[in-house]
Amino acid sequence: MAAFQELEKTKVAIVGLGTVGTGVARLLLDFGDRTARHAGRTLWLEKVVVRNLDKPRGVRLPPGVLTNNLEEVTQNPEIKAVAQLIGGLEPARSIMLQLLESGKDVITANKALLAEHGAELFDRARELGRTIAFEASVAGGIPIITNISQCLSANQILSIHAILNGTSNYILTRMEEDGCAFADAVAEAQRQGYAEADPTMDVDGTDAAQKLAILAHLAFGARINWREIPRQGIQSVDAADLRYARQLGYRIKLLAVAELVDSQLQLYVSPTLVKIGTPLAEVRGAYNAVSVVGDAVGRVFFHGLGAGQMPTASAVVADMIDVVVGRAPITFRTLELWSKRYERLSPPPPEKRPGKFYLRFQVEDRPGVMAELTGVLGQHQISIASVIQQEPASPENNTVPLVIMTHQTTEGAVLSALEKIRHLSCVQGGYVMMRVRP
Amino acid sequence: MAAFQELEKTKVAIVGLGTVGTGVARLLLDFGDRTARHAGRTLWLEKVVVRNLDKPRGVRLPPGVLTNNLEEVTQNPEIKAVAQLIGGLEPARSIMLQLLESGKDVITANKALLAEHGAELFDRARELGRTIAFEASVAGGIPIITNISQCLSANQILSIHAILNGTSNYILTRMEEDGCAFADAVAEAQRQGYAEADPTMDVDGTDAAQKLAILAHLAFGARINWREIPRQGIQSVDAADLRYARQLGYRIKLLAVAELVDSQLQLYVSPTLVKIGTPLAEVRGAYNAVSVVGDAVGRVFFHGLGAGQMPTASAVVADMIDVVVGRAPITFRTLELWSKRYERLSPPPPEKRPGKFYLRFQVEDRPGVMAELTGVLGQHQISIASVIQQEPASPENNTVPLVIMTHQTTEGAVLSALEKIRHLSCVQGGYVMMRVRP
Repeated sequence: MAAFQELEKTKVAIVGLGTVGTGVARLLLDFGDRTARHAGRTLWLEKVVVRNLDKPRGVRLPPGVLTNNLEEVTQNPEIKAVAQLIGGLEPARSIMLQLLESGKDVITANKALLAEHGAELFDRARELGRTIAFEASVAGGIPIITNISQCLSANQILSIHAILNGTSNYILTRMEEDGCAFADAVAEAQRQGYAEADPTMDVDGTDAAQKLAILAHLAFGARINWREIPRQGIQSVDAADLRYARQLGYRIKLLAVAELVDSQLQLYVSPTLVKIGTPLAEVRGAYNAVSVVGDAVGRVFFHGLGAGQMPTASAVVADMIDVVVGRAPITFRTLELWSKRYERLSPPPPEKRPGKFYLRFQVEDRPGVMAELTGVLGQHQISIASVIQQEPASPENNTVPLVIMTHQTTEGAVLSALEKIRHLSCVQGGYVMMRVRP
Repeated sequence: MAAFQELEKTKVAIVGLGTVGTGVARLLLDFGDRTARHAGRTLWLEKVVVRNLDKPRGVRLPPGVLTNNLEEVTQNPEIKAVAQLIGGLEPARSIMLQLLESGKDVITANKALLAEHGAELFDRARELGRTIAFEASVAGGIPIITNISQCLSANQILSIHAILNGTSNYILTRMEEDGCAFADAVAEAQRQGYAEADPTMDVDGTDAAQKLAILAHLAFGARINWREIPRQGIQSVDAADLRYARQLGYRIKLLAVAELVDSQLQLYVSPTLVKIGTPLAEVRGAYNAVSVVGDAVGRVFFHGLGAGQMPTASAVVADMIDVVVGRAPITFRTLELWSKRYERLSPPPPEKRPGKFYLRFQVEDRPGVMAELTGVLGQHQISIASVIQQEPASPENNTVPLVIMTHQTTEGAVLSALEKIRHLSCVQGGYVMMRVRP
């Protein structure tokens, strides 16, 4: 390899030196040769902006690089690209606007910010002739943004089925492999560093829905409010459900799905029964995976680490290179993401959401119960694919779990049926409802 | 979506209207809206050059587009990009040079041409300020070229393990699933359109080695002559080997491997035992897959159709878009592929190629044979991980198969041992040797 020392320098900066920021700094400082090879120039880390100068850091920065003053970036016209690696909505949004307004291209990993303020931020960037790159915002180390918006551009995308939340997948894997309860699996995920102290946004499907809104925008050219995506988390998944699913030949995964069905875009995030042996069912631990079907390319499947310091930093630095060499600005200009060019689209109502469903009830153990329950399903034109009914756990126990897997129907039909079933005297407590991947 | 009719036109052409060319023409003619959305302009198919004007075609071209005169492309300065979709080395090479010299950027799917004449063609393109794009040359519908050269650019790639030849994978899958012989599986692959009338280049590892040379160049920045890559095809794989592999917990796949081991780049194409349950072992039929490990991103796994009309056309059209919008020229300029900047590199000699190996012999069924054979292995410091020795098929049959799986050793040690073993009086005929993925 040639020497890269004499290459042209392009100055870059980082705002936010948390886990990912530290990884980005390491890649830029310690491995300049590889960024140089792919950028044809040196990405020179000029400034790193943090709130607290005194906090110990996991990377040794050259003197003069660390600052708590954002103006050292915004007022320095030599800095061209900034990795803005602050989580949450504010001050992340304001800082991104300040960076764009001071003439910087911005790289972000913040999917919540894009899902919430994408339209505003992208419009402003376009007005200013600037670029926002966001590969790291979805699926961490899997370069799914570039693959969908660039590599598969000759296709009409037909469907995306994805595991986008590594925390949930880790929890479900623990529950399945160790037979433990949801709460215990969460605690284990926290011990292993896969879950935050408050894991709500991960386990309730918020994180996956925000990422899905971004992918669906790229793939289907529709502007989607992530809040409108029908969304169910994994909190209601019980160890028993994983066992029943297995008996039926499935595993349970938190799937994020965007799919054209009869020309209508179906979107949902839901714990979903996925057939054992199919690639998505075999995604374990904190991994992510995306299965994309294009009408020309067929099915392409991607699997990799969806989070973590270095996988995410890998995506951020690839974006920095793309920004600096000029590829990302071309993509950004051409696609006009979140612009008025794209139609606002809301997912269809429940009666227009087709699917197969897994249902679990706790019912009285007496004659006629099955007939009563399945009678209600029949009234709603829901036909049954499989049933599991087991002996009561002990003779004193007079209720038993009843598991029903439906054939293809609609979510609306199932919800109407459940509203009736819930009020039957033979049914105790609530119910569990999940999707089944056909 | 906005109307795309009034967009700027960029004129493009196709040379060669075989299977892939026909697919590309269809995508450009029938689905202009999607290329327009991703290119911000219309890719206007101005000319299609063929040898024989009278041959029936699988696509309806507008009047005046079909021609047998290459000059209608080379003399037309309005045509900017040309998909050159002729197989083989000549006239593919000369036509590519003519296209470059007439000022066209060229998109190709011809890995043999690149593996053989990449240095010449890329040098010429650089001198002329032109671009060659070649996503479709490796792994068909899997966008592995872009992923390695762009998306994973922040990584030192540590290894690539890939199934790059769909024909071989289809044949091995048929042999495994139907228990049929190599020749029967080849015949079936030919009937299904997965193998050519002469499948030599697919089954002897040539095709995979040429693709591996391209990937290794991108990933490791080394210029490699594909002929120097140690290469073994699947012709010697017997249905019995698939059964023994299965007994040991493995499937046999034709793997193309490029891997840094102790800072030395190991390269080979070989039928390889891959542990059942790992992603590469589960790649079935005509699919391709690539498992890449980067030091930042970890393992990323890609799976998709490696050949066929529309998957390959999908890659060609994505390249056309990248060329026309200007992304591909940036990548081409920056990476300086096949240039003197990259070191020529030869794979190490057999004694420096570490690995685990699967060996099968036909030996006399008498006392002392095992001691004799394993004695030779021991003399070469090869230790044994597993052995399968079975009863003779019938009492009259006085030879039996003996299968040995080694621990980690070197290819050189195994080859030396085999040279001795082959001459032992207890060993009948030759031997089978394959790699085992650790």
